[in-house]
Amino acid sequence: MWPDRRLLDLFEIDLPIIQAPMAGAIGLELVIAAADAGALGSLPCAMLTPDKAREQIAIVRQRTSKPLNVNFFCHTPVAADAASEAKWRTCLAGYYKEHGLDPNAPLPSASRSPFDEAMCQVVEETRPKVASFHFGLPDAKLLQRVKAAGCIVVSSATTVAEARWLEAHGADVIIAQGNEAGGHRGMFLTDRVDQQPGTFALVPQVVDAVRVPVIAAGGISDGRGIAAAFALGASAAQVGTAYLKCPESIIGKPYRDGLAKADSDSTAVTNLMTGKPARGIVNRVMAEVGPLSPDAPAFPHAATALAPLRAAAEKNGSGEFTPMWSGQAAALAETLPAAELTRKLADDALRRLRQIAA
Amino acid sequence: MWPDRRLLDLFEIDLPIIQAPMAGAIGLELVIAAADAGALGSLPCAMLTPDKAREQIAIVRQRTSKPLNVNFFCHTPVAADAASEAKWRTCLAGYYKEHGLDPNAPLPSASRSPFDEAMCQVVEETRPKVASFHFGLPDAKLLQRVKAAGCIVVSSATTVAEARWLEAHGADVIIAQGNEAGGHRGMFLTDRVDQQPGTFALVPQVVDAVRVPVIAAGGISDGRGIAAAFALGASAAQVGTAYLKCPESIIGKPYRDGLAKADSDSTAVTNLMTGKPARGIVNRVMAEVGPLSPDAPAFPHAATALAPLRAAAEKNGSGEFTPMWSGQAAALAETLPAAELTRKLADDALRRLRQIAA
Repeated sequence: MWPDRRLLDLFEIDLPIIQAPMAGAIGLELVIAAADAGALGSLPCAMLTPDKAREQIAIVRQRTSKPLNVNFFCHTPVAADAASEAKWRTCLAGYYKEHGLDPNAPLPSASRSPFDEAMCQVVEETRPKVASFHFGLPDAKLLQRVKAAGCIVVSSATTVAEARWLEAHGADVIIAQGNEAGGHRGMFLTDRVDQQPGTFALVPQVVDAVRVPVIAAGGISDGRGIAAAFALGASAAQVGTAYLKCPESIIGKPYRDGLAKADSDSTAVTNLMTGKPARGIVNRVMAEVGPLSPDAPAFPHAATALAPLRAAAEKNGSGEFTPMWSGQAAALAETLPAAELTRKLADDALRRLRQIAA
Repeated sequence: MWPDRRLLDLFEIDLPIIQAPMAGAIGLELVIAAADAGALGSLPCAMLTPDKAREQIAIVRQRTSKPLNVNFFCHTPVAADAASEAKWRTCLAGYYKEHGLDPNAPLPSASRSPFDEAMCQVVEETRPKVASFHFGLPDAKLLQRVKAAGCIVVSSATTVAEARWLEAHGADVIIAQGNEAGGHRGMFLTDRVDQQPGTFALVPQVVDAVRVPVIAAGGISDGRGIAAAFALGASAAQVGTAYLKCPESIIGKPYRDGLAKADSDSTAVTNLMTGKPARGIVNRVMAEVGPLSPDAPAFPHAATALAPLRAAAEKNGSGEFTPMWSGQAAALAETLPAAELTRKLADDALRRLRQIAA
């Protein structure tokens, strides 16, 4: 029925769809619904403590017996730096004034912990079917322990060079993340945002470069996209933005409205929100300060000084300082509950594959 | 056999492949070979005088009875401006010095004429099957005459808004030009290079927005790409970069070598070469000055001051100042004579469509 069964068999899932882990934007209900409908449910742990991750994995396990993908960031942490923090606050000073906020008030540091010893213990205890990583892979010792726990290891490549590196360093499956994709670019061997290949160009080049199965990601929000991913040589498709439109997602109203109105050219890659390049709907601060600025502090510290502005604006129902991660195909996604969306994506993909059969 | 026959029937061609018109890079031999093999051969006229265009159309007609697409630019001309020219020469002064060139020497103006009265007369006399335009459409009176001459009118959209505009203004067929595409972006309602959607996201959104048939362009260099274009809803695929690798193309050695070595992330969109954004292989001047610079004069005047540098470097076999237009999928293209490439693209696409049939 499906033209390529490699990932269906490896992940033990019914449908060649990976529900993308989107930290801070999807909750457990969405992961459980997507998994129960046959996709690979993916739990984002990048913003969770180990205890919280353990707890959430346990809840998912109680609610569904389907395989689970547990996702982590594995960036190299950079300490907050007073000078770059000061420069960033100066850059944002006008907005602070406009919102009546004190530009010198002490702020809680933005924090995103990379995958570490404590998280590795969670993986060893819970042994999820799949462990996926963003920004490369954890160091060799930790990765070895993840593999010893029986996890299939997945990571994202934004270039052919990154795909080759991931395969050489132990990834069992590679996500080819095209430039269309929403959220953080998985890039880890390059910082050239302006040279990132699109999904259409990247997927077949990655397929040709590695032996492991490839998941296509970026711009896939309907059945046509899943059919096209197979045409390009992928063994499955990762879908993110379309799931954000589900009633189960935990995004705020400005973000949800932004997705509903998004057109083909409503997004850009920005470093303003966290310090690392990520694709989102262009809001006021992206339009006025960026979307890319050398003044944004390193990941994740750009988020620190934006936080009070974001909170103040959101109180007024505005997303002008809110990261509204989205790929370039939000407009293609139907607004449906996650289980229904998952089944419809698969049905439409199969229908499309039949329609275009030569 | 092909899943969508709309453009095969409309253009009266055997294969759903449009050989892209690439001004200055392909010659008559390539157009004739592609057309004879069953693609829509496309003659680039953007850099030709009306007399030269008339002559080249006559030669193609002598050599093949296949339908012909004749391609024009229809930008709004901007006069050269002494102040911006001076600023640009200052920006490039170090390179002039390095090459022993006089930075104050008078230079012949770069010139690209938009489609006009004289070219319209050529179209009326020669009545090609297809007239295609880049950067929008000619004004209504000229366009009416092109249609009265019996030509099918084609133009490129880089966003859904541009596709809607083209359909409303008389385009019979729309090329959805994804961000992966090499050469000049057809963008004419937006200047936001950083918000341009990729092929994977753009094609289905354009297909949903217009009733006319859609050609997918950008990142399509092999049969998988053509199959994927159909999956996304396109009725044909435009192939550019792959044809540049043919022995019939008229590109220089540095450019040909660049294409042979290109990887998935070897290109960027630059305005340095002509003043309008276009995707090419990153060379020295793009890496050092751009790829995008506010100092580059308006189209086509950026080319003026680069010309002596380009000529000097090319004498030494270097493409460090040469526009080397390329899409993001050069690495996927096999190096074959144009007729053979055309047939192989079609055969591989049909095989791929059979392989992925559900």
